[in-house]
Amino acid sequence: MAKASRIGHLLLRFLAFSATLSAVIVMVSSHENATFFTISFEAKYTKSPSFKYFVIANSVVTVYGFFILFLPAESLLWRLVVATDMGLTMLLISSISAALAIAQVAKKGNNYAAWLPICSSVPKFCNHMTGSLIASFAGVVIYMILLLHSIHRVLDPLLMRKP
Amino acid sequence: MAKASRIGHLLLRFLAFSATLSAVIVMVSSHENATFFTISFEAKYTKSPSFKYFVIANSVVTVYGFFILFLPAESLLWRLVVATDMGLTMLLISSISAALAIAQVAKKGNNYAAWLPICSSVPKFCNHMTGSLIASFAGVVIYMILLLHSIHRVLDPLLMRKP
Repeated sequence: MAKASRIGHLLLRFLAFSATLSAVIVMVSSHENATFFTISFEAKYTKSPSFKYFVIANSVVTVYGFFILFLPAESLLWRLVVATDMGLTMLLISSISAALAIAQVAKKGNNYAAWLPICSSVPKFCNHMTGSLIASFAGVVIYMILLLHSIHRVLDPLLMRKP
Repeated sequence: MAKASRIGHLLLRFLAFSATLSAVIVMVSSHENATFFTISFEAKYTKSPSFKYFVIANSVVTVYGFFILFLPAESLLWRLVVATDMGLTMLLISSISAALAIAQVAKKGNNYAAWLPICSSVPKFCNHMTGSLIASFAGVVIYMILLLHSIHRVLDPLLMRKP
């Protein structure tokens, strides 16, 4: 890899690492007490399996993103990185979708199933949730750029190089 | 591509196509009327944005899976197929995760948010939902095998070929 391209590559990886790290921190630090009708309850990410999955997936990708920053340029492991990148991007996408589906119900509720929206009772928790989802989404976009770049480099799908 | 490998490849693609097609059919054909406390309601996939997304994503992948079966072996478009495969696998994963998150709430409810489980009122709908998710999951697994095979072929990440 040329030096400029390598610096750009590492910069993107560092941004992706920061994005997923922020997503974890923002989600874990969100909790709020509220009274909902007559019941008092605490909103926290541990109360929904989807949010727990979101935090675990983002933590795994953060740890991976940290160690990959220190992988030497000439290491043969870089060939494995495309496959691991792909797997972890899929993990991240899956966790964001699950968390987003629950966040949508928390925000809008579902009349048909009689699930009431809870965001009016715990607005601070909902803001944290939204911020965390946006940060994680930014991380996924960066990983997708890295993946498409790898595929472009090894497969040349748009046939821009002359045979 | 050798002939045997090509037949195996097409067989896998046909299975993936069948899996996503079944997922769409089973989900779309599921509806059930029920009385929930004093309210009468109809459970249907259109009543949740996550299930609508699931049906749309599976339909897109089904149509793609159908047309790719007729792509000639010598077409240059096969180089693009790795990228489109990856994109559509991610779409499918995302839709399954979102639908699964909602299905989990439908089955178990969420005490903290006062969302009650609805599967005891609409068991037939819930069975369809589960079946559809399993079919779609089978489709994703096949697409992942195809993707890992492509990556293995062009990148040789485990260094099994001698340089």
